[in-house]
Amino acid sequence: MEETIKVAVDAMGGDHAPGEIVKGAIDAVTLRPDIKVYLIGRQEVVEQQLAKHSYQGSRIEVVHAPEVIDTAEPPVLAVRRKKQSSIVLGMNMVKEKKADAFVSAGSSGAILVGGQVIVGRIKGVERPPLAPLIPTEKGVSLLIDCGANVDARSSHLVQFAKMGSIYMENVLGVQNPRVAIVNIGAEEEKGNALVKETFPLLKNCPDINFVGSIEARDIPHGEADVIVCEAFVGNVILKLYEGVGATLVGMVKAGMMETLRSKIGALLVKPALKKTLKSFDASEYGGAPLLGLNGLVVKTHGSSKAKEVTNSIIQCVTFKEQEINEKIKKNIGGSHGI
Amino acid sequence: MEETIKVAVDAMGGDHAPGEIVKGAIDAVTLRPDIKVYLIGRQEVVEQQLAKHSYQGSRIEVVHAPEVIDTAEPPVLAVRRKKQSSIVLGMNMVKEKKADAFVSAGSSGAILVGGQVIVGRIKGVERPPLAPLIPTEKGVSLLIDCGANVDARSSHLVQFAKMGSIYMENVLGVQNPRVAIVNIGAEEEKGNALVKETFPLLKNCPDINFVGSIEARDIPHGEADVIVCEAFVGNVILKLYEGVGATLVGMVKAGMMETLRSKIGALLVKPALKKTLKSFDASEYGGAPLLGLNGLVVKTHGSSKAKEVTNSIIQCVTFKEQEINEKIKKNIGGSHGI
Repeated sequence: MEETIKVAVDAMGGDHAPGEIVKGAIDAVTLRPDIKVYLIGRQEVVEQQLAKHSYQGSRIEVVHAPEVIDTAEPPVLAVRRKKQSSIVLGMNMVKEKKADAFVSAGSSGAILVGGQVIVGRIKGVERPPLAPLIPTEKGVSLLIDCGANVDARSSHLVQFAKMGSIYMENVLGVQNPRVAIVNIGAEEEKGNALVKETFPLLKNCPDINFVGSIEARDIPHGEADVIVCEAFVGNVILKLYEGVGATLVGMVKAGMMETLRSKIGALLVKPALKKTLKSFDASEYGGAPLLGLNGLVVKTHGSSKAKEVTNSIIQCVTFKEQEINEKIKKNIGGSHGI
Repeated sequence: MEETIKVAVDAMGGDHAPGEIVKGAIDAVTLRPDIKVYLIGRQEVVEQQLAKHSYQGSRIEVVHAPEVIDTAEPPVLAVRRKKQSSIVLGMNMVKEKKADAFVSAGSSGAILVGGQVIVGRIKGVERPPLAPLIPTEKGVSLLIDCGANVDARSSHLVQFAKMGSIYMENVLGVQNPRVAIVNIGAEEEKGNALVKETFPLLKNCPDINFVGSIEARDIPHGEADVIVCEAFVGNVILKLYEGVGATLVGMVKAGMMETLRSKIGALLVKPALKKTLKSFDASEYGGAPLLGLNGLVVKTHGSSKAKEVTNSIIQCVTFKEQEINEKIKKNIGGSHGI
């Protein structure tokens, strides 16, 4: 018999909670017989949403959480004070091994803090990076770190490279993933103090396939599988990626509506264009794992709808099956650590 | 009689030198009667290009430069050794007031180094930032700094904000330009050490209209006129902007060629789409000034063609006419400096 993966899901987090979250959870258990979801949130609210759908009752369980952490709250304080919030309860379920993973579209800050403080880091991991997949011309790349670890040190970046390689190889199936560091030029002597210090460490790291610097311009071409950077830069890349994409797509659409001629043309190109733009839509690729924790925590976009929630839940199965954390423990915690 | 603006142009710099550079220079003097261009480069090569066009002979003069600095050369060494290169000769013309401005599509590093070492900083300016205009939904924003001043300090960023405001107000005609600092969240307490230190300084700076943090996602929406950041982040933003834009446009074009139906549609939307995408093309907006120097130095894209060269040369006229450097001197060097 197949093992069942237990995924705790924050029913209260994100712009479209609880409706889209609940729908995403139901779709996940409908698609995959090996998943059980614990929906964490205000019981009556969640049950109200559940009542709208039909699903196999034993595969979804509601866990009552009377409190909700708002995205505007200071994360450290919120995690400390709101012990009965969906985020804190979800993290505790992972910590106590009642769940294999926790998925949330809620406050990034609270998720990052909760991951470190409640779930805890794998021994040897200095900072747990947030590592979303970003779309490229050739497929996807892992951008690591986009989290809260600003002002990181070079040793952190080396660990990001190792954890990112393990993830891409085992979850995405990329053989010998190419690792690059974000830089402002291709040459080894370019960069700021952090990059100059990190570059030789990555170059001499035996566990990864380091291919050198990558300029931001080349990220969308898919020139590397694992893109290493500190969190401030990573956050800028992730958000600008979304921003430029959304703006351009909006401008293209508006441009097509300008004349009668172009409107007719728009009708004809629409299906082909839709397919193209879908491949460049980050929400297709599920959530971002927070790597290096004693359990799996996945942050999905605040704007997540059902599809992204479903994809994020299903992603947890591969993570567990491929024993990512055991591999990280062996690589970072073991004798091969730096 | 109108004053003539003298612009030294690096005929040897960039991917399309000297052909497109020479053409751009000729177009500039043809469009504007108040410009004289000094084309700096290998005499016989430049004259060969000039011979292909007809133009008013007295408005273009060739300055022989036997050497060329390659983009791959270490900048400091190249500027020191190649005294007869087009970049060093052009910088010297600005220093000696033989030219009002120098425009080059050549080595960014050599231009940044040459600007500081040869042309020199305005007294009181700590670091001269490179400040390109980037397209947005609403027009353009100034991204400052995208230069080589990595690992900047907070006092530098405050000066960038002041110089950027002067530029946007006087060259672009934006009244009371909105200044924002690039951050990973909208709240004041967010950010890395540099941003946290700079935020209150900008907030308390009386000379600028500081509107707070800007997330990378909102940059393409045109939410600020002057976008302040340190050079590493600025470089990532600039290059990712170009990269995502180019990739998406390429994917849209390829997507339209997928089926017969979409091919016909593509023919119909083409003119409207071309117009839209043109407004999002950075080369429309000329080059990036290196602000805070004793003279004007403009860096244009390495891939510049004639049109961008022409725009960059014409840009120098407004800079001179609006007395930008006098305003920077008064603001930064004077009693209102920090």
